[in-house]
Amino acid sequence: MTLVIHPVHGIPEITVGVDLGSLIGEVCYSADFGLIDGDVLVVTQKIVSKAEGAMVEIDQNDPLSHKPIVEREAVRILRRRGDLIITETKHGFVCANAGIDLSNVARGHAALLPEDSDRSARRIRDRIRGTQGLSVGVIVSDTFGRPWRRGVTDVAIGCAGIAAVVDLRGTEDAFGRELMVTEVCVADELAAAADLVCGKAEGVPVALVRGVDPNWLRDSSIREEVVRNPAEDLFR
Amino acid sequence: MTLVIHPVHGIPEITVGVDLGSLIGEVCYSADFGLIDGDVLVVTQKIVSKAEGAMVEIDQNDPLSHKPIVEREAVRILRRRGDLIITETKHGFVCANAGIDLSNVARGHAALLPEDSDRSARRIRDRIRGTQGLSVGVIVSDTFGRPWRRGVTDVAIGCAGIAAVVDLRGTEDAFGRELMVTEVCVADELAAAADLVCGKAEGVPVALVRGVDPNWLRDSSIREEVVRNPAEDLFR
Repeated sequence: MTLVIHPVHGIPEITVGVDLGSLIGEVCYSADFGLIDGDVLVVTQKIVSKAEGAMVEIDQNDPLSHKPIVEREAVRILRRRGDLIITETKHGFVCANAGIDLSNVARGHAALLPEDSDRSARRIRDRIRGTQGLSVGVIVSDTFGRPWRRGVTDVAIGCAGIAAVVDLRGTEDAFGRELMVTEVCVADELAAAADLVCGKAEGVPVALVRGVDPNWLRDSSIREEVVRNPAEDLFR
Repeated sequence: MTLVIHPVHGIPEITVGVDLGSLIGEVCYSADFGLIDGDVLVVTQKIVSKAEGAMVEIDQNDPLSHKPIVEREAVRILRRRGDLIITETKHGFVCANAGIDLSNVARGHAALLPEDSDRSARRIRDRIRGTQGLSVGVIVSDTFGRPWRRGVTDVAIGCAGIAAVVDLRGTEDAFGRELMVTEVCVADELAAAADLVCGKAEGVPVALVRGVDPNWLRDSSIREEVVRNPAEDLFR
């Protein structure tokens, strides 16, 4: 299968209360690529937080004024170095600054993570089904750093209608031998792929991925399938 | 920009000494999508290891017979639990089992990581330039697990002619504010995107990515740009 990834241009600045599903559906519908059953929309966290009002005011003259909010939003601090705080959030994500960030947000404000990004994805999906009669997958993505590897990449923090993890255990490799441990986090791979066309600076907040394996189109959840149980975790 | 990702079908079983660059170039040339300047080829580690003879014999009746090789190949053991060994390799990668694996490899053999995957990528790139006069980016990818998140994803372990990390610091976000920390590991995002069309089970070992930002096409190195210095690392 060939995959095509389109940046979705023309999404206006998002304010609290905006019906993201209807808006994204309309913008895609008007784009030359349109929107069809089985497309996967990757929506960056920032516009989800803005639509849901997951924003806080900060002192725009103090570059560290969001740090007390980081401490409040985190359920656990894993590491600190200088201004860098690696946190576990209430959702179970391990990321810098409890996922709070200031880029592409109006001065004097910071965006928090959505309360429940799986639910946010589900709402967008349901709304597109309701208004356009189309069944699409939706991923809410955010930008996380990684231990051991420099540079950030986008990962999925919520999903609906698209598998978070595809379990290939029990399938056979090209030599007819059963694959041992191959649970692939396709939601993170889709989020990463989408970031290649969204970019950080351009402010394109949505990408459309066409050509995804139809077997992956199912109900799913990042919190249930991807967030690792701290008890199973070797690095916390 | 729109990105298109093609699986490259028709790569035969690779044996030691095969000239991968010429082979991949020819297979792409014969495919309906062809090969053009600026394409990025993502080549899975397994066929690079096979072509370079980075293979060892193991006892096919003992499912743990590769474990002594893991201990030999690792420069550091970070964690152990049961059969799982999280290692640091001589290349600086942190991954399970020193990157050694048995899937898509003939019975009785295990594949090691290539000696120097940046060099492997460079050879493929140079060979395609030499035989076809085309300038393409090349990424060697492998499948790694992550702490805190379930499911594996593909990452870049070598690259040539394509940026490993794109530094957006100093560029402005959509609000005209300077982005603070935004070094994006586009090589990992490209590897992840490619895995969506290669799959683990199908044994499609190469993907072609077309439409990559031309500004990203430059000399680079995963070891120099992505592998985090242990002294800077908070989780080792």
